[in-house]
Amino acid sequence: MTEFDFIDQLKALATHPAARGLADDAAVLPFGRHKLVMSHDMLVEDIHFLSTADPADVAWKLVAVNLSDLAAKGAKPLGLLMGYGRVGNDEWDIRFIRGLKEAIIKFGVPLLGGDTVSMDKSSKKTLSLTAFGEAKGHIVPARCSAAAGHSIYVSGPIGDAWGGLQIASGKAHAADIETSAILLKAHNRPDPKLEEGRALSSLVSTMMDVSDGLLLDASRIASASGVNLEIDLDTIPLSKAFETVFGSDEEARMAAATGGDDYQLLLTASPETVLPINVTRIGQCRPGSGISLMKAGEQIALPDSLGFVHA
Amino acid sequence: MTEFDFIDQLKALATHPAARGLADDAAVLPFGRHKLVMSHDMLVEDIHFLSTADPADVAWKLVAVNLSDLAAKGAKPLGLLMGYGRVGNDEWDIRFIRGLKEAIIKFGVPLLGGDTVSMDKSSKKTLSLTAFGEAKGHIVPARCSAAAGHSIYVSGPIGDAWGGLQIASGKAHAADIETSAILLKAHNRPDPKLEEGRALSSLVSTMMDVSDGLLLDASRIASASGVNLEIDLDTIPLSKAFETVFGSDEEARMAAATGGDDYQLLLTASPETVLPINVTRIGQCRPGSGISLMKAGEQIALPDSLGFVHA
Repeated sequence: MTEFDFIDQLKALATHPAARGLADDAAVLPFGRHKLVMSHDMLVEDIHFLSTADPADVAWKLVAVNLSDLAAKGAKPLGLLMGYGRVGNDEWDIRFIRGLKEAIIKFGVPLLGGDTVSMDKSSKKTLSLTAFGEAKGHIVPARCSAAAGHSIYVSGPIGDAWGGLQIASGKAHAADIETSAILLKAHNRPDPKLEEGRALSSLVSTMMDVSDGLLLDASRIASASGVNLEIDLDTIPLSKAFETVFGSDEEARMAAATGGDDYQLLLTASPETVLPINVTRIGQCRPGSGISLMKAGEQIALPDSLGFVHA
Repeated sequence: MTEFDFIDQLKALATHPAARGLADDAAVLPFGRHKLVMSHDMLVEDIHFLSTADPADVAWKLVAVNLSDLAAKGAKPLGLLMGYGRVGNDEWDIRFIRGLKEAIIKFGVPLLGGDTVSMDKSSKKTLSLTAFGEAKGHIVPARCSAAAGHSIYVSGPIGDAWGGLQIASGKAHAADIETSAILLKAHNRPDPKLEEGRALSSLVSTMMDVSDGLLLDASRIASASGVNLEIDLDTIPLSKAFETVFGSDEEARMAAATGGDDYQLLLTASPETVLPINVTRIGQCRPGSGISLMKAGEQIALPDSLGFVHA
């Protein structure tokens, strides 16, 4: 049984409309006059973070990736519940709590509860987090309402987190410390686009966060909406820091578009819709399915891997 | 750093009133006109369940222990988010999903989302669950409002789950299959007292679920409320099945009172309060602190361990 078979079996159980077929960033449930939006992610050592990672960054990321799911639904975060598997490394735990505190203060979201478990020392560190928030208004964006003719946008530069990973793992080197710091920060301390999500949520046809790679995530919108997403590789926004280290040729752009961990918002909207914040148009929806990649007006081949398929 | 030191550090972060100082069964947050009640628990192989346990029972227990936290707050469950660490044992996963389905149907609570992670085969199976629900009315019972003079009650028999564990682990034997089945069911398939919790929640001064042992859990009410809980050992209700196997002498009663995993409700209320369902009075609150144990009108010594201190 593959991961996908297993998830299919779970999907067969999750028939409630609020589950959104387990195919969205978050569950969305009417609660009183508003909507409750909830995300639950696990992070496991050696799968989602290196055993050498700074525990404060791991804590930050645990919070940020869940808040990014809420951002994609335009929800305001209300609280966190954390599950923490301790393996008897006090120094790790103390630094983790420091990063957790930093994230809680930065994003203004309280820790409200959870559970701790003492696991044996040989266990991989295992963390779980539930973030929940409130979405006002009637419509919470999903992935299934993109239509042919809609424009495709991203909320900011793509590829910085991938660039930071290359530097962190010694595969690339930035000439100056400042550039290096920008890319490492994108990798270690992702910034969920909460305000942007709230500003955009009532105007978009679909919205999700870019976690596994822009092309892979775009293919999920294509699949859920039953349209083709045609993306112009040259319009994908790269940061100055990224370009300084990796350039902006096709290879660099392809790495950015498949690298993952960006936590920018990917959205579609009718081209007539005036969006209230700066976003970058990277393509358009067409009749069809899947994604198409354009460069200089010509369709080019898709890369072998569209992104990072989480285990 | 002990587990308690670590939790103290988390408590220092969890200053929001909805967190209830991380000292209650669940977080309680005003949301619209009602209250959102949320619980998050992890279950880890070899800590919370045996590697030989039926995976369907593990799934049931994962759901039931979280719903029991909601029951103690008088909340109606609205949904579940699950984190599931797969270790490549298909048969286990399939049976787990079967038990999950049974629990979801039995308790009428939908699976709304979550996360799956493929862990390596040597990992301990690790599961996390967030259950959330809605409490109507202004007051959601906590642990801190018991007062001298209040009566102490439990919602049903204590000790059956401990009895089932003795049978499952070969330490005890029931003469007839029916008795054995009752005790094993209490251990394997706990039944959260959701209806009872809702019926009682507006009338009690404190309420919690008995998860770690009646005496240990009672000591938590004593500590949070700043009173002494005087419990009469002879009034603790035992089931017929329990008595058939273990008798009802002091040793048997002490085992029941410290055994854990009962998932009955433990509550206090003013003695004038008429409670709408059958509960059993087991003692009274007095000025002081901690718990006192009475038998035949005399105070007796507390056991060395009041219950199961989860790692």
